[in-house]
Amino acid sequence: MTTLENRPGADFDSPEHQARLAELYRDFDAVGMTPLWRTREGLMPFSPEPRAVPHLWRWSELYPLAARSAELVPVGRGGERRAIGLGNPGLPGDPYATPTLWAAIQYLAPRENAPEHRHSQSAFRFVLEGEGVWTVVDGDPVAMRRGDLLLTPGWHFHGHQNVSDTPMAWLDGLDIPLVSGTDQGFFEFGPEEVRDKSTPHRSRSERLWGGPGLTPVSAVGPRPQSPLMAYRWAHTDAALAAQLELEEEGQPGVVEPGHAAVRFTNPTTGGDALTTMRTEMHRLRAGTRTRRTRTTASSVWQVFSGGGTVTMNGEERTLEHGDVFAVPSWTEFGLQADGDLDLFAFSDAPVLEKLFLLRTSTDGSAA
Amino acid sequence: MTTLENRPGADFDSPEHQARLAELYRDFDAVGMTPLWRTREGLMPFSPEPRAVPHLWRWSELYPLAARSAELVPVGRGGERRAIGLGNPGLPGDPYATPTLWAAIQYLAPRENAPEHRHSQSAFRFVLEGEGVWTVVDGDPVAMRRGDLLLTPGWHFHGHQNVSDTPMAWLDGLDIPLVSGTDQGFFEFGPEEVRDKSTPHRSRSERLWGGPGLTPVSAVGPRPQSPLMAYRWAHTDAALAAQLELEEEGQPGVVEPGHAAVRFTNPTTGGDALTTMRTEMHRLRAGTRTRRTRTTASSVWQVFSGGGTVTMNGEERTLEHGDVFAVPSWTEFGLQADGDLDLFAFSDAPVLEKLFLLRTSTDGSAA
Amino acid sequence: MTTLENRPGADFDSPEHQARLAELYRDFDAVGMTPLWRTREGLMPFSPEPRAVPHLWRWSELYPLAARSAELVPVGRGGERRAIGLGNPGLPGDPYATPTLWAAIQYLAPRENAPEHRHSQSAFRFVLEGEGVWTVVDGDPVAMRRGDLLLTPGWHFHGHQNVSDTPMAWLDGLDIPLVSGTDQGFFEFGPEEVRDKSTPHRSRSERLWGGPGLTPVSAVGPRPQSPLMAYRWAHTDAALAAQLELEEEGQPGVVEPGHAAVRFTNPTTGGDALTTMRTEMHRLRAGTRTRRTRTTASSVWQVFSGGGTVTMNGEERTLEHGDVFAVPSWTEFGLQADGDLDLFAFSDAPVLEKLFLLRTSTDGSAA
Amino acid sequence: MTTLENRPGADFDSPEHQARLAELYRDFDAVGMTPLWRTREGLMPFSPEPRAVPHLWRWSELYPLAARSAELVPVGRGGERRAIGLGNPGLPGDPYATPTLWAAIQYLAPRENAPEHRHSQSAFRFVLEGEGVWTVVDGDPVAMRRGDLLLTPGWHFHGHQNVSDTPMAWLDGLDIPLVSGTDQGFFEFGPEEVRDKSTPHRSRSERLWGGPGLTPVSAVGPRPQSPLMAYRWAHTDAALAAQLELEEEGQPGVVEPGHAAVRFTNPTTGGDALTTMRTEMHRLRAGTRTRRTRTTASSVWQVFSGGGTVTMNGEERTLEHGDVFAVPSWTEFGLQADGDLDLFAFSDAPVLEKLFLLRTSTDGSAA
Repeated sequence: MTTLENRPGADFDSPEHQARLAELYRDFDAVGMTPLWRTREGLMPFSPEPRAVPHLWRWSELYPLAARSAELVPVGRGGERRAIGLGNPGLPGDPYATPTLWAAIQYLAPRENAPEHRHSQSAFRFVLEGEGVWTVVDGDPVAMRRGDLLLTPGWHFHGHQNVSDTPMAWLDGLDIPLVSGTDQGFFEFGPEEVRDKSTPHRSRSERLWGGPGLTPVSAVGPRPQSPLMAYRWAHTDAALAAQLELEEEGQPGVVEPGHAAVRFTNPTTGGDALTTMRTEMHRLRAGTRTRRTRTTASSVWQVFSGGGTVTMNGEERTLEHGDVFAVPSWTEFGLQADGDLDLFAFSDAPVLEKLFLLRTSTDGSAA
Repeated sequence: MTTLENRPGADFDSPEHQARLAELYRDFDAVGMTPLWRTREGLMPFSPEPRAVPHLWRWSELYPLAARSAELVPVGRGGERRAIGLGNPGLPGDPYATPTLWAAIQYLAPRENAPEHRHSQSAFRFVLEGEGVWTVVDGDPVAMRRGDLLLTPGWHFHGHQNVSDTPMAWLDGLDIPLVSGTDQGFFEFGPEEVRDKSTPHRSRSERLWGGPGLTPVSAVGPRPQSPLMAYRWAHTDAALAAQLELEEEGQPGVVEPGHAAVRFTNPTTGGDALTTMRTEMHRLRAGTRTRRTRTTASSVWQVFSGGGTVTMNGEERTLEHGDVFAVPSWTEFGLQADGDLDLFAFSDAPVLEKLFLLRTSTDGSAA
Repeated sequence: MTTLENRPGADFDSPEHQARLAELYRDFDAVGMTPLWRTREGLMPFSPEPRAVPHLWRWSELYPLAARSAELVPVGRGGERRAIGLGNPGLPGDPYATPTLWAAIQYLAPRENAPEHRHSQSAFRFVLEGEGVWTVVDGDPVAMRRGDLLLTPGWHFHGHQNVSDTPMAWLDGLDIPLVSGTDQGFFEFGPEEVRDKSTPHRSRSERLWGGPGLTPVSAVGPRPQSPLMAYRWAHTDAALAAQLELEEEGQPGVVEPGHAAVRFTNPTTGGDALTTMRTEMHRLRAGTRTRRTRTTASSVWQVFSGGGTVTMNGEERTLEHGDVFAVPSWTEFGLQADGDLDLFAFSDAPVLEKLFLLRTSTDGSAA
Repeated sequence: MTTLENRPGADFDSPEHQARLAELYRDFDAVGMTPLWRTREGLMPFSPEPRAVPHLWRWSELYPLAARSAELVPVGRGGERRAIGLGNPGLPGDPYATPTLWAAIQYLAPRENAPEHRHSQSAFRFVLEGEGVWTVVDGDPVAMRRGDLLLTPGWHFHGHQNVSDTPMAWLDGLDIPLVSGTDQGFFEFGPEEVRDKSTPHRSRSERLWGGPGLTPVSAVGPRPQSPLMAYRWAHTDAALAAQLELEEEGQPGVVEPGHAAVRFTNPTTGGDALTTMRTEMHRLRAGTRTRRTRTTASSVWQVFSGGGTVTMNGEERTLEHGDVFAVPSWTEFGLQADGDLDLFAFSDAPVLEKLFLLRTSTDGSAA
């Protein structure tokens, strides 16, 4: 075949050729053109090469800083929330835990109120400890207590109020990076005070949707986001315990030996509770060591109780109460439990599944 | 336009023509042909003209007959079940409640065992009263108690055992007529005794799937039929009560004023718990009179508690504890509650929805 | 275990017991109750036991009878169509080809017009031979020519006009038995003459939807039924020919060696063109003998061109031009081609797939 | 309510407070924490504030540069393609047309071959002019000719060969930015020469899938990506012409007066041909001015034939043959045709639809 290289007279190393090439690249630049042949490896790597790095934040550091901010910074209209985002060291400039996920500590001092607003970004709160705050979602007051997962699906008004005399802090998860990176952000202010100051034990959403397998006939049909705003710890704990008991009885249920896990789902579809983020709770029996896995989903985890070790790309870190860690795409990942170990996790897996991009491999072998 | 009638010489009333026509119809018969022009109205009515009729069976009659049969007929291999089907008077020859639904009273005497089998037909049991029986579904013992709905999805092995010293009777619902009419029936014997004689408080399916919005990570993904085999009365009752309370608070939830209803759904899809039958529980506040409706779904109802009146095509019948009634397609239908009135209902609506045939109208106006 | 049979004093053969039992059954009858233990085998067979039988109608008999009827019976309002249904000998009383499918020869004499109407039943026409008729579907005139499949989805107005000087006959397929058996029939008269008497080469539906993989942006989104009203023989023939050529090239495409087949699909979903009936065209290379299969779908076939043999439950019948045959559920079925053999087929498979009831086995082994 | 601001003794302007705050922010930095209250407006704008800007590249500039590169740079393993990406001036550093879309001119000199590879990124080629190149997709040679859209769905091997004596250039579209931003990239080399050097008129994918509404029975079932690799200009042109003719006949079809458009769809689902990019062809009748719209999808357009004007956020640019322009999220957008105007367009709308993020407004009003 006749190609450029073997054409009579071609000399790619000649100074003349190099000069003409340099001129071409200058002309490319002038009109904003970039040749693929100079950028292919960066744009299209052989396997994911995330800039984000595996990273762990200590709760013992995060919490005191959040508490200090409460003495110095008010919560109010404009800033909106006393939430402090965890920035991945591999993504300097952007306060993102991974390229698609935002994770923050939110702190509400006694008797404080965070004003209502809504945004196209989806959000949830996971409660490591404490109680006394109600988040009001589209007018429905939802109690926040230890171990609970509370949803704020996209474009739902929400504000928070602490009715107690103790501060409360929790983990916020949002799809801010994804929505920002695709330019999908809309935001709107609501009332400065939460619109319903009552503090019911159960939210209306739980009263309507909280029966297992029970759907109000007035509201049948799929919805993109879960209509159930609270997933209570008592249920989550019981489901995890049941899986481990079933394992002991020789019955199916666990993900792998010693490893129970539940996914928080939308009862109208059976799919993920939120459209852009997967949320799960994992429990490892003492001594369990999980399989090493890789997935192209990026995720953020928080230690809910117990302790152990996380291994990411071969590097081990001890896990303590409340610690938060980020797992970028295609990181080799494993967990080990010292005593019983409970972890909350969220990821961008639903996005990748819908786009048929998600890949997973077990024990490090490529998918 | 030249048509047959105005062709020169045509005389449709002539004896000769009539004779030729009669000969043609004989020749049609000989090869099994039937002209549409002689049958169109029957085959394609202007609106549904069900042969099935609105009908009500009194529990006060059904139960004693079922009890008498227990003294005379054993339960065992071959006959399989002491179940007595309710035949719609409009469908003589077939023991069907409606053209698609089979409803029966099943009765198990103290210490009796109904042998295991499986079939392509889907089934459920609704418990009007009593307890002490466990239905074993694919090896999972499921307690049956007052107000519970228990599923036996198609092709799941199942048998029942009464471990108590009292008899127990319940309502069985199956899609036998639909499966029979489309020639889809498969049936297989299992063990003569239920394979697991334990009597746990909660079935394994409830332990795995009974948390609201919680899905085992090991089992995510849609399934045609619900993996949750028991819908417990405590949850159903609470959900109905909540809808009526929300109504009093001015919040959405009820189907119409004074009328709460929940649908039993498949947590992996949000759709109906079974593929071929919809199952629901309805509660009417004392004094409530529902809108008059028509739907092309046929249904069967049982009074769970309270009393009132059902009106079908203008005819009123009083409702008493345990009464069962059949509502054929396109019947004008309404309920009235004397005191609080709870009813269980099942219908073929999922079939018709999937085929885009379901029509509904409110207050008698055509859809 | 203590059961009825081994209770002290039980004697099931005693005259007294038999008398009590007879009395019980009389009392059951009086309230319309039927014991399952006396009917289980009929209601719930071990495998499908269709009343419908494999049956073949000769085109050489059908066509002359249809032609004779045109001399004796007009087409007009009331009778609506000169369509003559093919009744399965196993289903006496009902003019049904199978329990779910109605098949008929429709005949339109020169210059005749069949008045417009619509019905909830879905319909199609398959053209064995001839041309000159336009079917007007919701106001869109659709030419009918040899080899074409023309749709009339449920609740679309439609009438036919023959603008030529020759008669035309074709195969009509409808889901009348299914719709009748579930009481879903609605019917409405339209104009007595077709509302648009133009005779365009291509219907508007083809102009909008006839480009492969092209969807009008104004009409994106799924629809239950195909918006494409005509599937032209030229395309069908080319697709079948291509599959056999690809087979010769060693490429995938055919169903099995020597056996090409295309399904007529809804371009907005990729699923079946109609909600309740599957429609396909099959081509067998000369000498091909298909695998023996069983499926719980029932079907009706018509020989479009060529000849061969059909084997149903072991019985062979020769196939000639235009012959129609019915294949009930779970019939062992195979085809053999003498020369090239083209067949049109329709079935109730979409219904059964949606209900998760469809089973298929190959070479007679149970699924 | 007692808040931070009105607590006795609080003085937010005091030097001491400012010093403590500065110290807090330093401590935040040290652990990678970023307060939302200082970044909320950037992270969560009131409406999309894309960094990408509306931009137009002239074909009259692009093509000569591409041609020059063919004299200086070979095509071969490593660089892989002589494709030159168009970089949005608002996204310096990244050669991306929009935050999710990569657009490039690819140029193949006479008799050149671009080696095979595959990647998780989805790709297509749209042919502005010329012919003589075959793209070989998973071993299936697909001719590329003027007006055709050719697909290379993710993870399909593909290479190109120019068998003619004239160069050929076309528009490449890929989801590189989306896949890169979410760390989903996988890449693999294939053979250096295309594996099948034949040059058939129709690809195998067209022979199997190119019949309108016809699906091979051997291949039924949904696929995420279209199995049809080529959408031919003759079909696209005819579909657009038909819409405008139907408009003249008073029939539905066009998007708005004078504006026809077709979407390239996956025949197995009716959805977009590719999972991550929407592809469409638009035709404006001479003189047509489209409605002003905004959508949160970003898009890239190319003028296929004719001329006119594009207005983006109030700024008008004339459109000439081959011009490419980028429309960022939420840009107010309109087109005006001088003569007849045909445009090809692609966007990230399918991604946003699946995530329930897509918003659209007409005539500039907010959605």
